[in-house]
Amino acid sequence: MSPLGISGLAHLFGILAFILLLVWLLHYREGIDYDSDKGFRVFNVIFYDGIPNHTKRKESQEVCSHALHLIAIVLGIVGLNAVFKFHGMENIPNVYSLHSWIGIVTFCLFGLQWLFGFVVFMLQGASVNTRAKVLPWHKVGGRALLFMAVCAAETGLMEKSCFLTNLKLLHGRESNLINFTGLAILLFGVFVNFSVGFS
Amino acid sequence: MSPLGISGLAHLFGILAFILLLVWLLHYREGIDYDSDKGFRVFNVIFYDGIPNHTKRKESQEVCSHALHLIAIVLGIVGLNAVFKFHGMENIPNVYSLHSWIGIVTFCLFGLQWLFGFVVFMLQGASVNTRAKVLPWHKVGGRALLFMAVCAAETGLMEKSCFLTNLKLLHGRESNLINFTGLAILLFGVFVNFSVGFS
Repeated sequence: MSPLGISGLAHLFGILAFILLLVWLLHYREGIDYDSDKGFRVFNVIFYDGIPNHTKRKESQEVCSHALHLIAIVLGIVGLNAVFKFHGMENIPNVYSLHSWIGIVTFCLFGLQWLFGFVVFMLQGASVNTRAKVLPWHKVGGRALLFMAVCAAETGLMEKSCFLTNLKLLHGRESNLINFTGLAILLFGVFVNFSVGFS
Repeated sequence: MSPLGISGLAHLFGILAFILLLVWLLHYREGIDYDSDKGFRVFNVIFYDGIPNHTKRKESQEVCSHALHLIAIVLGIVGLNAVFKFHGMENIPNVYSLHSWIGIVTFCLFGLQWLFGFVVFMLQGASVNTRAKVLPWHKVGGRALLFMAVCAAETGLMEKSCFLTNLKLLHGRESNLINFTGLAILLFGVFVNFSVGFS
């Protein structure tokens, strides 16, 4: 299969995951509303951060890449705020689950990676030689962060479906929808892995 | 950092994850015993499959790689049997959670990847040209499977800690131990990603 075909599959599963998330949140859950008084709606804002933001980093796409990743960081901050707000409203303790640990570690490293890339490559804060030397690390680091983000998303779906099961709020079909969403996110990660694997 | 140093870190976190799992299962849970009448002990057998089995596939290590992966498949079969046995004993439905979906998809693809590698590379069932052509795919596929296995392990830890929370069986320190185990598995995957990233 051509690299373009693999990249197409990665995009397909990324878009599929996004659509499945929307169907889930709008049909089964309480929709998406950050300023809602209803705790669960606030919580759903965070899922907009669930799809890792990936662009192939060719030099011509550098600006676009940095801008998209900055948007991902802003969405991440909105999402983390929504979680803390939701936990405050529902009296749930913060940062106790494996999902929260993975999510916060990933988000912090993602922020550092972005800052590093911005200073070194965009502002050209390092010599041409140094830039050439650290670029492979930056790329492999980006791939690692993508997989960490996929892990954060999968553990998040797992945690949410566990909570809904306990509260006897999980519909049978909804459970399948969550699982298909998780598989789509996983396959998105797998095909991104293939599409950057040979570059 | 040298490739040897990164590979060392990958091994370090792999061993750390294994030790943390053992401490968790032996200290907080009911230990490990496939033939036990106690459902939870049977369940713990599956965690031996939780640490993805990775060796760098240089040609000289091919036989060792295939043997180790075959052991992983056997452990996987023992683990899956243990889960179905545990579910039967406790009247829990099979293959309903995201963890189980990811786990089974990963295990099946892992089996296919092993069979493919065995026939094509070990039995030399393809020409030298074809072998050279499919080797990069086999490597990138192996990396994808490692990340899928990490996702299966993380969602498994998440699911188990959710269940224990519901049953009010989760100790405060145990929760942290599970989270550190999950982080160690994640960092194992990240450093394997770095160590194979430049090869």
